[in-house]
Amino acid sequence: MKKSLPLSQVYKFLEPGPVVLVTTSIKGHHNIMAMSWHAMIDFNPPLIGCVISNRNDSFAILKKTNECVINIPTVTLIKKVVGCGNTKGSKVDKFNKFHFTPKHAQTVKAPLIDECYVNLECKVIDKKMVNKYNFFILQVTKAWINSKQKNPKTMHHLGNGLFMISGKTIKLPSKMK
Amino acid sequence: MKKSLPLSQVYKFLEPGPVVLVTTSIKGHHNIMAMSWHAMIDFNPPLIGCVISNRNDSFAILKKTNECVINIPTVTLIKKVVGCGNTKGSKVDKFNKFHFTPKHAQTVKAPLIDECYVNLECKVIDKKMVNKYNFFILQVTKAWINSKQKNPKTMHHLGNGLFMISGKTIKLPSKMK
Repeated sequence: MKKSLPLSQVYKFLEPGPVVLVTTSIKGHHNIMAMSWHAMIDFNPPLIGCVISNRNDSFAILKKTNECVINIPTVTLIKKVVGCGNTKGSKVDKFNKFHFTPKHAQTVKAPLIDECYVNLECKVIDKKMVNKYNFFILQVTKAWINSKQKNPKTMHHLGNGLFMISGKTIKLPSKMK
Repeated sequence: MKKSLPLSQVYKFLEPGPVVLVTTSIKGHHNIMAMSWHAMIDFNPPLIGCVISNRNDSFAILKKTNECVINIPTVTLIKKVVGCGNTKGSKVDKFNKFHFTPKHAQTVKAPLIDECYVNLECKVIDKKMVNKYNFFILQVTKAWINSKQKNPKTMHHLGNGLFMISGKTIKLPSKMK
């Protein structure tokens, strides 16, 4: 189902601001967190900046392992996404609780969430802003896309459990990348 | 038309990932650029991280003046937004060319774009990542919202002039802020 996504195309999936699920792994234990505070930093190799709060269990795992996967869900998964946001990975196995399927990644130990239509394997390349802002800079080392997913409807957080669902698209002549 | 927006509510407008227009000003000359590479860094006071390429005229102005305004347009302005992305502020007065109305800000010299439904006055508070990543950390010092704008349709860049327009909303019980 999944095919390789060229790294040069990764920015197109994060620029519009979807809620993503970040997976991490340590000593065989996988975790999942929901995240909206991310931005592209560079095109290729794709660099991503993101805030992972030190109140999240994922913070310590990412800081230690320097690896994660950014998984982009469609709106069909919205209840599971909110569930991940409302539970603690140190107390519950989120893959099991929310019936997500972990798949082996190619370049990192953290698992892909098979149900997400895009998966970005990432390595932490800069932690200088972690102590002050909980801000990590990641490099995407391998990317996957479900080529059968047409018109994916992504979810975009508006605060307090309110989500905007992606609508129609418009194409304009543009010199912008 | 515009009323003060509590700083604690700012994140709700940037989390979903809209294209924004960044205004800067130096020696009485205003500039505008389109931007999609931004993320929330903290809630209150609201901190925003953003990449402003050193190929943009706005880069040098922001680096020198440490002030800007992030303006959020609705889709009715899409042609003007793409126009701003396709022109150089050093060669053309974008306020004049695209018929945008500059309004005085309260805490910075850069102007608000009156036609945008949200305006965030920002000061640069951290330039440590500017040389390496063109990444600025801004603090929102004053925020405005057009209280008459109901159901604002924001635009979200998918690359190469393709935009997703914000669709319907869904509310779920959530402990997430």
